[in-house]
Amino acid sequence: MPRLHPDRLFPPQDPSLSLARSLHEEIAGLPIVSPHGHSDPEWFAENRNFTDATSLFLTPDHYVLRMLRSQGFSYEALGLARKGQQPTVPGIAAWKLFAANYHLFAGTPSRLWIDHAFHWAFGIEDELNAANAEAIYATITRRLGDDDLKPLAILDRANVEVIATTEFALDPLLHHRNLKSKGLNQRIRTTYRPDDVTDPENPGFIANLLRFGEVTGEDVTNWNGMIAAHAARRAFFRDNGATATDHGVPDALTDDLALHEKQRLLDGALKGTLDANGKRQFRAQMMTEMAALSADDGMVMQLHAGSNRNTDPQLMAEYGPNLGADIPTRGEFVHALQPLLSRFGAAKSFRLIVFTLDETVYARELAPMAGYWPSLLIGPPWWFHDSPQGIRRYLDQVVETAGFHNLAGFNDDTRALLSIPARHDVWRREICRFLSQMVAEHRMSLPSAREAARHMAYGAAKAAYNL
Amino acid sequence: MPRLHPDRLFPPQDPSLSLARSLHEEIAGLPIVSPHGHSDPEWFAENRNFTDATSLFLTPDHYVLRMLRSQGFSYEALGLARKGQQPTVPGIAAWKLFAANYHLFAGTPSRLWIDHAFHWAFGIEDELNAANAEAIYATITRRLGDDDLKPLAILDRANVEVIATTEFALDPLLHHRNLKSKGLNQRIRTTYRPDDVTDPENPGFIANLLRFGEVTGEDVTNWNGMIAAHAARRAFFRDNGATATDHGVPDALTDDLALHEKQRLLDGALKGTLDANGKRQFRAQMMTEMAALSADDGMVMQLHAGSNRNTDPQLMAEYGPNLGADIPTRGEFVHALQPLLSRFGAAKSFRLIVFTLDETVYARELAPMAGYWPSLLIGPPWWFHDSPQGIRRYLDQVVETAGFHNLAGFNDDTRALLSIPARHDVWRREICRFLSQMVAEHRMSLPSAREAARHMAYGAAKAAYNL
Amino acid sequence: MPRLHPDRLFPPQDPSLSLARSLHEEIAGLPIVSPHGHSDPEWFAENRNFTDATSLFLTPDHYVLRMLRSQGFSYEALGLARKGQQPTVPGIAAWKLFAANYHLFAGTPSRLWIDHAFHWAFGIEDELNAANAEAIYATITRRLGDDDLKPLAILDRANVEVIATTEFALDPLLHHRNLKSKGLNQRIRTTYRPDDVTDPENPGFIANLLRFGEVTGEDVTNWNGMIAAHAARRAFFRDNGATATDHGVPDALTDDLALHEKQRLLDGALKGTLDANGKRQFRAQMMTEMAALSADDGMVMQLHAGSNRNTDPQLMAEYGPNLGADIPTRGEFVHALQPLLSRFGAAKSFRLIVFTLDETVYARELAPMAGYWPSLLIGPPWWFHDSPQGIRRYLDQVVETAGFHNLAGFNDDTRALLSIPARHDVWRREICRFLSQMVAEHRMSLPSAREAARHMAYGAAKAAYNL
Repeated sequence: MPRLHPDRLFPPQDPSLSLARSLHEEIAGLPIVSPHGHSDPEWFAENRNFTDATSLFLTPDHYVLRMLRSQGFSYEALGLARKGQQPTVPGIAAWKLFAANYHLFAGTPSRLWIDHAFHWAFGIEDELNAANAEAIYATITRRLGDDDLKPLAILDRANVEVIATTEFALDPLLHHRNLKSKGLNQRIRTTYRPDDVTDPENPGFIANLLRFGEVTGEDVTNWNGMIAAHAARRAFFRDNGATATDHGVPDALTDDLALHEKQRLLDGALKGTLDANGKRQFRAQMMTEMAALSADDGMVMQLHAGSNRNTDPQLMAEYGPNLGADIPTRGEFVHALQPLLSRFGAAKSFRLIVFTLDETVYARELAPMAGYWPSLLIGPPWWFHDSPQGIRRYLDQVVETAGFHNLAGFNDDTRALLSIPARHDVWRREICRFLSQMVAEHRMSLPSAREAARHMAYGAAKAAYNL
Repeated sequence: MPRLHPDRLFPPQDPSLSLARSLHEEIAGLPIVSPHGHSDPEWFAENRNFTDATSLFLTPDHYVLRMLRSQGFSYEALGLARKGQQPTVPGIAAWKLFAANYHLFAGTPSRLWIDHAFHWAFGIEDELNAANAEAIYATITRRLGDDDLKPLAILDRANVEVIATTEFALDPLLHHRNLKSKGLNQRIRTTYRPDDVTDPENPGFIANLLRFGEVTGEDVTNWNGMIAAHAARRAFFRDNGATATDHGVPDALTDDLALHEKQRLLDGALKGTLDANGKRQFRAQMMTEMAALSADDGMVMQLHAGSNRNTDPQLMAEYGPNLGADIPTRGEFVHALQPLLSRFGAAKSFRLIVFTLDETVYARELAPMAGYWPSLLIGPPWWFHDSPQGIRRYLDQVVETAGFHNLAGFNDDTRALLSIPARHDVWRREICRFLSQMVAEHRMSLPSAREAARHMAYGAAKAAYNL
Repeated sequence: MPRLHPDRLFPPQDPSLSLARSLHEEIAGLPIVSPHGHSDPEWFAENRNFTDATSLFLTPDHYVLRMLRSQGFSYEALGLARKGQQPTVPGIAAWKLFAANYHLFAGTPSRLWIDHAFHWAFGIEDELNAANAEAIYATITRRLGDDDLKPLAILDRANVEVIATTEFALDPLLHHRNLKSKGLNQRIRTTYRPDDVTDPENPGFIANLLRFGEVTGEDVTNWNGMIAAHAARRAFFRDNGATATDHGVPDALTDDLALHEKQRLLDGALKGTLDANGKRQFRAQMMTEMAALSADDGMVMQLHAGSNRNTDPQLMAEYGPNLGADIPTRGEFVHALQPLLSRFGAAKSFRLIVFTLDETVYARELAPMAGYWPSLLIGPPWWFHDSPQGIRRYLDQVVETAGFHNLAGFNDDTRALLSIPARHDVWRREICRFLSQMVAEHRMSLPSAREAARHMAYGAAKAAYNL
């Protein structure tokens, strides 16, 4: 390639399909690295077969549930159980409702993922609809009894090199200890997510914190003791494979207070006397404390900021959290992360991976910040934005300023096991699409694009998470 | 189509032109449904010929006026009359100024709409310019005398199945009553827009509210009486064809107060003692009241939020409102709509259609919200965003999360009658473009795309507005 | 072209490459107009050869420095000197570090610019890497001794018709006076940037303002005297070629206070007693004063709003400003500019060019505002957004509402002399790309596109800056 191609940046004469294919060929076979997600560790520890199509595809998938609800179907009709009750609708009935309304998913990533899983795991080529609902249900349910669709076999088949689950600080990690005893804790890892003891807005916060003290043997009524409890618990998680922590927060706020102010906040938190502002300040300070511990123990810190949780009080009361009523809000990272980055932004062994649900911060805030601070990486498109268009907007807006080496590769972040290969497939295809266009516009050489494709598909995630 | 095409998501080898054409062929002939706009009902009730090119294309089109003003031409020179005065510049002189500067509209949707109307209604193929200004003026003005360009004939020719105008709460609906007497009130409908009596920031608010009491015979000094007045007036509007209400508000704020607080706000509003915050709270509460009435009487509620009206005090003083000085502001819907949605978000007979001028809320707020709440639909791109690029950004950002069935189809929202077929034409072409690309990338089957095209061009609007 | 092409807005059958080439052919040879930037006037006044590759490409380019730092390389290792010290690392060592990490710039505009300069000025075709680092360093350093790479020869070779530098209000303009004595001050112009005496947040503000009084002979303790000092200093800058002023501000805030309030702010500013809010109000009022002076003396006012400067306190302490730690923040222009535009938005001889780092305001605020106010133009994509994708997002979002004639053409805004032709090259290619697609979609005639291309490449900047 001449350095200055006469057609650079112009719309290419030939479509970049062959370039995309050729880039994809080289990365399609790379192992999957899944460093953040919400798989149930029991699946892998017990390795029992899944039982039926509805409990695999419908009831655990909040993307699917919310879309059906938006068209007026009740969660009860979709096979969900009210809190403390049993489902009132049989799985097959819920499945038929889902199948009859499968056209609602036209144009959505859920459709891509489900179609992928149908084909990939069950060899189903037909489009789900009311007419074939029962037949497909039967096919899936029958195949689920086979050994090659047990959870660990699915990991093998999907070529998953490593996968991380996410557990709260008080979780005893029973399944991970079981996995460890089987020598599987380098492949199936936990992640330390201490929201239960870092955010006083958590309803069980005081009890959680006291229990945290018991579990770790530290005096959590004293600020330094409480931090020591985290250090101990992080070591326990690392012992079970964790290389990272994760923090789910409504905003990215951090703080850097003097010890007496921190103790005052802790006292208030334990007495339950903090107002909303005090609670927010406690949480903000805890983020900086987590960074300090990470700089010390080398765990990678993840920040998932900007979800406004449980916006439907009725759903929360009847069915509980994580069922589709969490909605993004506007984000701000420059001022919010200033206290943390001023202290640890250039710390040698510290790494912070930030996720946003507000795409307006990609080009304005996160890409410029990640393109400066050594410790900061941008996580992949999260949640609603983990989709073909979402990935296109992300790459469009972050790469020019952050480059590829300030990105953390891909996370599937899913609760739906069979969506893992599907989601990585979409990500890899989109990476190849983006790079093929860069090459076709003479903005990047093909060798550079090959290197970037491998990095984004595999190397970046391994490096980002110290795997 | 195999479920997993090997080239899915890659840039297609062949351009999707033939797919776009084929999708468009099927929907191009569908009737136009125009459920929200600002046509003058007198046009249809009186069905008089329009008189000349200037008063048809120039003086009523704030998109055109503002662009010419931005280049330094005065509204006087463009043929507008100062308040209470007559125009000082003859129509033909204003037209020549417009024609000589028609190049300013290169790249704008105004240009697309005007070119469309020139061709569609007058058979004009030439590009307007200084040289042909008089000839084109004469051609238009002459043709406007023909019977097939009377307002009702234009609706026929454009295949308009139904069109809604917008009237304030105190409007006597003379023209709609006339239309009703002619059996036309199912085709030409009104819309209940009670901003004049719901927003205390309205300069005539107190007088309006007292008049509202007289007109309805209700005691509007009492909160429940004031709500009963709305119920009565809504019935009167429904009797004249209305199926929907519309609310033009600076932001999407809603509230849910106790009766004594509501009465206190009403007392203050009538005494003129509310401060800015109290006025805002009154307006916010009124939105929830409108939702309650809609849940009861089945009228579809539209919210047009985010225009900062009349930003040029001099223009407002000299010429009045709606002439180009309204500018969008940043929007927020998650917290703002929480009080209303917590009460009515899942109400069976309630439907809320939200419009925004802040595109950043498409993917972050509106699509996730509409993909959850049964009552919520997203309106089409509004105002400055009703354009080819605006529609592309909209589809890019809403479809993946909201699907097609949480969208309200298209509104032309225009004051310019001849732009109605032009605007629907752009929308339909953009829908076909978007879908052709989904098909070409193997993300959607052609039958699904056909179904989505018909839905977005016709069915969605009819369903959304109960037409 | 028929007015209504049957395929309008559809994806074109043939790629628009030949259209893009043909548009580009006509504008590629147009002179460069560079009305805003940060070249060092000493380069042109002294016209000395540059000395070596590192001090030309690496140490002055904060885009390059920040990316290398983001990967953990220290500014010391990159050849920078700590404040008041000499560099500790030789230029060639820093260069080798840069070369060995050149792959980090894949996909970034820095890469495009540097590759362009390598080819354009040095005939280098090879991709920089560890292996060829020393050879390329030697090639560049050797060639830099030639007469045709002296600063003025570079301007000739790049066909730069006019270039403006930027100086603070207290700058004695020694180099510009030298240039004037050589008859070069119409080609190399200064720009009046009085941030040093308009923003009390500036650390040296009080001393600066007192010095400003001495320099101009005005009583700057009196508001009107302080304004008169500006009027005098602006005349001095105009005498040295300035046609414009520039204002670097954290936000776009303007104000319009009564004289006694202004005097009170000035008194507080000089005594150092203003709080943050008072300082902001002072700065906001000064923007309106600058507009008033511009309306009077005809200097074009530029507003660069939204950079959060010096977010890394350690970098600031050790190395100083403008080294990569400035990060954009969210912007707001509608309310912020209201006081200024209400007074001068339609003033005949006033022109305001606004730049933003927050792309969300393009379609929502700036395009609608520029499409209305006669005085307002939108500046080109700034800083991180001066890139192929950044330019695409800009054109996508501003053209439909503002048209081409409310845009200010291109600024390179660079401190890196050899990036000037590279940056204008990218801009022109992107303009041709955008227009070729408008033509291919039958949204614009080819003659209109040709006219728009010339305007955006050359005419717009000359007109906007009165050059």
